[in-house]
Amino acid sequence: MARVVVDVMLKPEILDPQGQAIHGALKRLGFEGVTSVRQGKRFELELDGPADEATLARVRQMAERLLANTVIEEFQVRVEEVTSA
Amino acid sequence: MARVVVDVMLKPEILDPQGQAIHGALKRLGFEGVTSVRQGKRFELELDGPADEATLARVRQMAERLLANTVIEEFQVRVEEVTSA
Repeated sequence: MARVVVDVMLKPEILDPQGQAIHGALKRLGFEGVTSVRQGKRFELELDGPADEATLARVRQMAERLLANTVIEEFQVRVEEVTSA
Repeated sequence: MARVVVDVMLKPEILDPQGQAIHGALKRLGFEGVTSVRQGKRFELELDGPADEATLARVRQMAERLLANTVIEEFQVRVEEVTSA
């Protein structure tokens, strides 16, 4: 069993109104020294079998087809934890 | 300048309908071998100063007060990248 994490964030050049709203709210709550906030999505996938290159390639396909809108978002795939299956 | 990441996920015992919907969609797209999918939020915070323990403690406070609903969510804070200045 492999746990693979897919982190999806807006591309740097894309405006992030959610991140800006949170940044403003943090200031109003009295938190100083925060330069910027960006918000994205995190997916945890549990998959059968080993976290080998073939599995990671498949997860990249899943990200491209469903988990991320690759026009405005970019993603990173990484193995987080391998438990014995 | 420090970049600190806050990952917010639903607690394990909480039902994750979004994750289940994505799991179903992956199956319909022909992706086999996916045991489960959980979806959460990822925040990237850029902060002034070093990524020391005091900074991480402040970010934990931000997570408890705003970024996560600690009744149903849990979060993890980690330093991702420290750039000069």
